[in-house]
Amino acid sequence: MDTSDLFDSSDSSRSGKPLAYVQTAVFPGPIQLSTGGILPELKIAYETYGTLSSQKDNAVLIFHALSGDSHVAAHNDDDDPGWWDILVGPGKYVDTNRYFVICANVLGGCRGTTGPDSINPETGKEYGFHFPPINVADIVDVQRMLVNSLGIDRLLAIVGGSLGGLMALDWGTRYPEGVAGIVAIATGARMTTQALAFDVVARNAIMSDPNFNGGEYYDKEVGPSTGLAIARMLGHITYLSQESMNRKFNDNRNVGRKIDTSFETKFSVGSYLAYQGGKFVERFDANSYLSLTLALDAFDLGPTRKQLVSAMRRSMCRWLFVSFSSDWLFPAFQARELVDAAIASDKQVSYCNIESYSGHDAFLLENEAPMYGGLTSSFLHNLSLDWQPDDEERRQALNESYGAASAEPKSRVDYDRILALIPPKTKILDLGCGKGDLLAHLKARGHERLVGVEVEEDLVLRCMEKGLDVLQLDMNDGLKSFSDHQFDFVVLSKTLQTIKNVEIVLDEMLRVGTRAIVSFPNLGYKEYREQLESGHAPQTDPREGRKWYNSNDVRFLTIADFEEFCQDKGYKIFKEVALDSKTGEVVEDCENVNGDVFIVVLGR
Amino acid sequence: MDTSDLFDSSDSSRSGKPLAYVQTAVFPGPIQLSTGGILPELKIAYETYGTLSSQKDNAVLIFHALSGDSHVAAHNDDDDPGWWDILVGPGKYVDTNRYFVICANVLGGCRGTTGPDSINPETGKEYGFHFPPINVADIVDVQRMLVNSLGIDRLLAIVGGSLGGLMALDWGTRYPEGVAGIVAIATGARMTTQALAFDVVARNAIMSDPNFNGGEYYDKEVGPSTGLAIARMLGHITYLSQESMNRKFNDNRNVGRKIDTSFETKFSVGSYLAYQGGKFVERFDANSYLSLTLALDAFDLGPTRKQLVSAMRRSMCRWLFVSFSSDWLFPAFQARELVDAAIASDKQVSYCNIESYSGHDAFLLENEAPMYGGLTSSFLHNLSLDWQPDDEERRQALNESYGAASAEPKSRVDYDRILALIPPKTKILDLGCGKGDLLAHLKARGHERLVGVEVEEDLVLRCMEKGLDVLQLDMNDGLKSFSDHQFDFVVLSKTLQTIKNVEIVLDEMLRVGTRAIVSFPNLGYKEYREQLESGHAPQTDPREGRKWYNSNDVRFLTIADFEEFCQDKGYKIFKEVALDSKTGEVVEDCENVNGDVFIVVLGR
Repeated sequence: MDTSDLFDSSDSSRSGKPLAYVQTAVFPGPIQLSTGGILPELKIAYETYGTLSSQKDNAVLIFHALSGDSHVAAHNDDDDPGWWDILVGPGKYVDTNRYFVICANVLGGCRGTTGPDSINPETGKEYGFHFPPINVADIVDVQRMLVNSLGIDRLLAIVGGSLGGLMALDWGTRYPEGVAGIVAIATGARMTTQALAFDVVARNAIMSDPNFNGGEYYDKEVGPSTGLAIARMLGHITYLSQESMNRKFNDNRNVGRKIDTSFETKFSVGSYLAYQGGKFVERFDANSYLSLTLALDAFDLGPTRKQLVSAMRRSMCRWLFVSFSSDWLFPAFQARELVDAAIASDKQVSYCNIESYSGHDAFLLENEAPMYGGLTSSFLHNLSLDWQPDDEERRQALNESYGAASAEPKSRVDYDRILALIPPKTKILDLGCGKGDLLAHLKARGHERLVGVEVEEDLVLRCMEKGLDVLQLDMNDGLKSFSDHQFDFVVLSKTLQTIKNVEIVLDEMLRVGTRAIVSFPNLGYKEYREQLESGHAPQTDPREGRKWYNSNDVRFLTIADFEEFCQDKGYKIFKEVALDSKTGEVVEDCENVNGDVFIVVLGR
Repeated sequence: MDTSDLFDSSDSSRSGKPLAYVQTAVFPGPIQLSTGGILPELKIAYETYGTLSSQKDNAVLIFHALSGDSHVAAHNDDDDPGWWDILVGPGKYVDTNRYFVICANVLGGCRGTTGPDSINPETGKEYGFHFPPINVADIVDVQRMLVNSLGIDRLLAIVGGSLGGLMALDWGTRYPEGVAGIVAIATGARMTTQALAFDVVARNAIMSDPNFNGGEYYDKEVGPSTGLAIARMLGHITYLSQESMNRKFNDNRNVGRKIDTSFETKFSVGSYLAYQGGKFVERFDANSYLSLTLALDAFDLGPTRKQLVSAMRRSMCRWLFVSFSSDWLFPAFQARELVDAAIASDKQVSYCNIESYSGHDAFLLENEAPMYGGLTSSFLHNLSLDWQPDDEERRQALNESYGAASAEPKSRVDYDRILALIPPKTKILDLGCGKGDLLAHLKARGHERLVGVEVEEDLVLRCMEKGLDVLQLDMNDGLKSFSDHQFDFVVLSKTLQTIKNVEIVLDEMLRVGTRAIVSFPNLGYKEYREQLESGHAPQTDPREGRKWYNSNDVRFLTIADFEEFCQDKGYKIFKEVALDSKTGEVVEDCENVNGDVFIVVLGR
């Protein structure tokens, strides 16, 4: 079996080779940790890319995952590959021609920053098992010391996946002034019990390895490499999805590769795991694995929804959450929990659950980059614009460097009417917002609090490109994330007829918004009546080739039906506009006959 | 933390205590194994429940999972609990008043049947690592030797979950004459790569335990208990779902229980795993764990679809497959793969994917028993009836003992018409078959090949209770499991209007069946026209309280629309019947105006 593709994975780290561009910041102790522990000295290994602007407003801090390091990207063609080369570099999604990127090895790690394998200056020996316990908060505080030492008070953004995502959450909620925007990928408010359980088994494997020797193995010939390799094998299973593992190994499941290992290599996936385990022990330290996973497992942004909301409420940044549909280490429901808390605390937040078969590793893979990279790129660009709301010249320069599309939003006959119904400065939620055209109109008109909900991820990306906050949610599941009367208007434009759970959606709209604006095709329109009279089902879907059997429309109603429905439900109708969309004119008499589109403003 | 509920699990085994009702069958050697290995002697530990009928037609063989044993149920109130007490016993789903139940410990196990910890009569010492490698086929052959030695040529049924399910598949495809029906629960044609990977890590943990000593540890004070406990911890994670783990442990995640263990107990889930691991090593043998998981991992009923179909084609029994929605060790798609192969090879098969949050363990849990137990109970009853097609007296006695409902199927006006369109003895597939009323009519009329497709699991159970073969599938996903022209007629009665993917479903119906029979409400019906003329959407859903916003109907069409559609698609219409369902009469003129229900026979 050829290993070149199958055996390589997101783990592109170099086996212990020193990195040419690593800088080291040294902080004298004592450093007090949240756990009560004290470090007599602190060293931080970090790398930077690009140039810090004179306004110091373009710094992007990237947090690596459990086994990563400061080498997020290659510095030039001769440099070793970085672990996120697909995302970070000149002209890439995180464009180092534009942003000043910082990445540091984490506290407790083993790639240059102080950790269990560092020499304790007080003893002249490695800390080993005596390295004090740490929390994610300590890891973050150390990163913040570095950022401040570089003269940066406020980061443009933090980007982090997995453990890096937990760190980003911690920073955003404890140091709100210190960051304008956070991209948290494939992460959660805490580990699931299942993920925690895997970590427990991994630690048990390490600590019960006789060569672990209570963590004092640095002067021994052999360390707990068997236990650490087993821990890594387990980790690798959780990084891949069931489907990606089947795709990689199922066709040759019984063809193990001969590699130099004492582990089982009978099955192809077994030899892969043995290979990954063996590679890992060459570059990673078992005590670091214990220290970091314990920090990870103890992290909890808020064990109850209430606590989570109050944590998110402390934040002051704009948020982008990204999850992957097949990630079971940090499943999408965990991102949703965070998104819900951000919404409930009225933060600016966008979210996309990217359809992927690649599991947790998706956030490191090239084939997934157009979506999560594109979202990140737009998000960073929008943050830059936010930072300079009044400097029109700089905004324009940024837009040009970004190659932004013309901001002229598309027109649709009902948009003008809906816009006319919405007073200035009001807060708007647009359900089924599509490419964000209506919201872009409103944004151009100066509304500040605008949120879109859209189920298709391509359209979510289009909205982000327009600078909008957008949430990839299925409104049929309800709007439970939103608080009562969080918006002045909730808009459902030409979407009612495609919705299965009409009652839930309308009820929720009137809970979340003071008013609801709904538009839909009117089945009572004269042409539709004529169609049925001639023996055919009315064709309400105007799109080419759409008929009764392939339309997205699943609900058929007249203006009279809707009015009756509102009466039954106790909804008040504040305004009604019937349109003849052929002429674009408002219909004044016999709306149920002469109007093909109906727009209505509802309230309770 | 109280351990009584949280720490107990499906693993209700007794710690090594001898079982009072175990019998042992001894077979002299040499026994040749499929792997080339030879056993000088074979002992099988087994238990039986109930009485073998004089016709020997009521024997049910139960296969246990990886770590189970022969004690499937308690023999009386004073006996130790069995591992499947909720399913097996007098008056239970597998009723020992009616069936003769056999359960034996598997070959390679450590609960009485010959395995690595048995004494090799040739050496006078335990086999240990010299126990020959075994396959699932060898495990099954040993069970078959036992069954034959009890004078039984043909089993009424085999019931098995997990590893037991693989064994059932092996028996059914290699000894087709030996069994009338098989219930295969939470199983698959092979392990997923992910499940295989977990086994690899588990074996690596055992074999790298220094006390494993190459499998020769029986005379040592300490065996590889650390490695075996770690293997078991891993196993436990895979038996539970993410949700069930969260439910059990999340509220008290940081409250570990103090137990006597060298493993980590910091988190509640950690102390649970340490407890389970510790309990397991008291009763299970590490060499058995290796031997059995290797057999499990090597099993493959057919690596390609073609091979899988040809394996299933060899079978001659009726099948019931059951999966659980949250089982990720043997995910539902694996059951579907088996069901598809059974369908493609024209076997009698039923299938249900039970909605559950309990993961793989669901098949051992009481709260899930009404569904999987009910399905199993009906299936066994139907098998009994099949066995005696001509003995009306026995059939009646069986039905009475089962408490079967009256076989009088319900009537519906369009059923009579549809029945009139179906010639005798034809093969029928009914899509959206509901409680199976139409199929029950056809069964009463003597049709032999009848299959229902239904998406709701409660209705699936109702169909099983009527003795029907039913598949829980969503027809919107297509009918790809079925072969071309596998049926004479495919029926879609009053369901077309609720289907999203109309084109796919109709295309597939005409691939799978020579003719399709479709019935739907006609939007052209005069009353519907009048409703629209009066300004309201036609109300085609006759059910009380169903209106435009809460009907299941999502497609609206007239007879003329449907005829046009057929012309566009090149479907031929062989027969049309328009009904006035108020009078029950056939409409002879102006069908598109006077008929509210349309029934049509289509072909290509």
